[in-house]
Amino acid sequence: MTPDPERPFESVDEFDWIERCLTPLAQGAPEALGLLDDAAVIPTRPGFDLVISKDALVEGVHFLASDPLDEVARKLLRVNLSDLAAKGAEPYGYFLAAAWPARHRWAARAAFVRGLADDQNHFGLKLFGGDTVSTPGPFTASLTILGWVPQGRMVPRGGAITADVVLVSGAIGDGCLGLEAAQGGLSGLTEADRTFLISRYRRPHPRTSLAALLRIHAHAAADISDGLIADAGRIATASSHQIDLDLDLMPLSDPAARWLALQADPRAARLRLAAGGDDYEIICTAPAAEVSVFIAAAAALGVSLTPIGHVGPGRGVVVRDQGAVLAIERAGYRHA
Amino acid sequence: MTPDPERPFESVDEFDWIERCLTPLAQGAPEALGLLDDAAVIPTRPGFDLVISKDALVEGVHFLASDPLDEVARKLLRVNLSDLAAKGAEPYGYFLAAAWPARHRWAARAAFVRGLADDQNHFGLKLFGGDTVSTPGPFTASLTILGWVPQGRMVPRGGAITADVVLVSGAIGDGCLGLEAAQGGLSGLTEADRTFLISRYRRPHPRTSLAALLRIHAHAAADISDGLIADAGRIATASSHQIDLDLDLMPLSDPAARWLALQADPRAARLRLAAGGDDYEIICTAPAAEVSVFIAAAAALGVSLTPIGHVGPGRGVVVRDQGAVLAIERAGYRHA
Repeated sequence: MTPDPERPFESVDEFDWIERCLTPLAQGAPEALGLLDDAAVIPTRPGFDLVISKDALVEGVHFLASDPLDEVARKLLRVNLSDLAAKGAEPYGYFLAAAWPARHRWAARAAFVRGLADDQNHFGLKLFGGDTVSTPGPFTASLTILGWVPQGRMVPRGGAITADVVLVSGAIGDGCLGLEAAQGGLSGLTEADRTFLISRYRRPHPRTSLAALLRIHAHAAADISDGLIADAGRIATASSHQIDLDLDLMPLSDPAARWLALQADPRAARLRLAAGGDDYEIICTAPAAEVSVFIAAAAALGVSLTPIGHVGPGRGVVVRDQGAVLAIERAGYRHA
Repeated sequence: MTPDPERPFESVDEFDWIERCLTPLAQGAPEALGLLDDAAVIPTRPGFDLVISKDALVEGVHFLASDPLDEVARKLLRVNLSDLAAKGAEPYGYFLAAAWPARHRWAARAAFVRGLADDQNHFGLKLFGGDTVSTPGPFTASLTILGWVPQGRMVPRGGAITADVVLVSGAIGDGCLGLEAAQGGLSGLTEADRTFLISRYRRPHPRTSLAALLRIHAHAAADISDGLIADAGRIATASSHQIDLDLDLMPLSDPAARWLALQADPRAARLRLAAGGDDYEIICTAPAAEVSVFIAAAAALGVSLTPIGHVGPGRGVVVRDQGAVLAIERAGYRHA
């Protein structure tokens, strides 16, 4: 029976919804017990630790009401996959709690499930369970993700030591520029550049391919969700060390570089990119002697790694740009 | 530094909030990494499976805006603990995602944390991680709970077999009567009875003490969150068997029995209690030969178990009351 896309969801039985739309996402996962039970059961896996992370998204806060729901589903999975990648963990499964407003009908829910289905196939994980509820407020979803690491090998935030080199994957700043473009800004850029940046904001690319290399080479790692400086600061705090960042070394995408070239104050502009959120790249620290091997191995997987600073004794983050130390008042974007 | 209770939360740094209020909930749990990391790490535990469940609560749907937030926190933990208990699992830890409206200031958040702290001490579990976000909508929280069972010993929904006896713990129907009382109804009852029922609605008592006995004696089990009939129906579905329930055997609290005595149509009234939600008692099936031992062992732990039906070949639930078969149009309350 094909659901009527315009049928108001209030008239739809939640069990129908689970059976028709969610159960297929759990297929092939004995852990999920066909979504027929109160809970999922994760069998012991000798030699491995389970890594668990949980992130929530709220319409109007973390995504725009106009964002297509399949993209929202992808983003929800991907921000959680980004956490797993930073910890050196391989994707395993997830639990979803979704609070649906009545205005989201079958078509919207089906789009959300389509986004989940595509991405769980792509990244190799299954739905294990969760909860579906209604809300008089905005669409809200939280996802709990599970991954495996070899026992004792999770890459912590707190492992940075003096003389480590700080590296970042990919390019920094596209997320915050993409948000501005999605809200109608950045009119000075070409349509192609704006489209590129919007897609980077809407659909992050979690660096799952780096997980194994991080376990080998990184002393500490985190994903960049709240901004390069803020997330570097958390590594510094957790590691009880100081991190020095050189913003002029910060890797930029071509569209971000073209945006930068249009700015009157490049130093302030770079600082803004370094404080912006939603990059979902990896920041990590590694011993200097391993950096060139680490970079070459990542490049072989198609991921660029760029050294942008170092770790030393002290506390907090010191941000430099062409040698000058910048005063940071409030590092990083925080979702209000 | 004591937070100003009337300080609007917008001006409060989320990291302050985590450090001051949430980190103490993670104390003593190495899994949580001091809430300083992107993820928690669960070490392998040979000989045990991990049982995971996730439930969400939305203000205005699952609790009333007037409910005190410490009670909401307890309810959130307890509805999840109830799932663990039904699976025969021992509480271990939890992840919390909370979406806070701006109107909830420090005092409200502190009350919520107080409820969590009390209950996690009482039930023996710790906060492992999660996410805190803001919302323009109602307060919404989802909790992912983790528990341990000896390997392969999770009590499923799908294990009921022919000739099993169906038992329920405690008393049925207080949850739905308590909701009505909390909304100003049940004026025919004494204040003491109304207060009792409201407290049963607001603060469920998950049957964690039954977990080990369920592993020994029960073929199938679930907690009663959506109503006796609905949850019996899910056991029947998952087990591919029929469950026959005798509503005149249904155990009632004294206040619920007094409410029943005031109703013109006792059969309709019993049906309403059996279809009401929020009981958080256990429904389980056990082989007839073990029932008396099972009941005696539960009684020794202070929990009553009452036989209210049996399992046979077929599908679905057949509900009887003093011999007459009742036609069930829509079994169980579902949170709209």
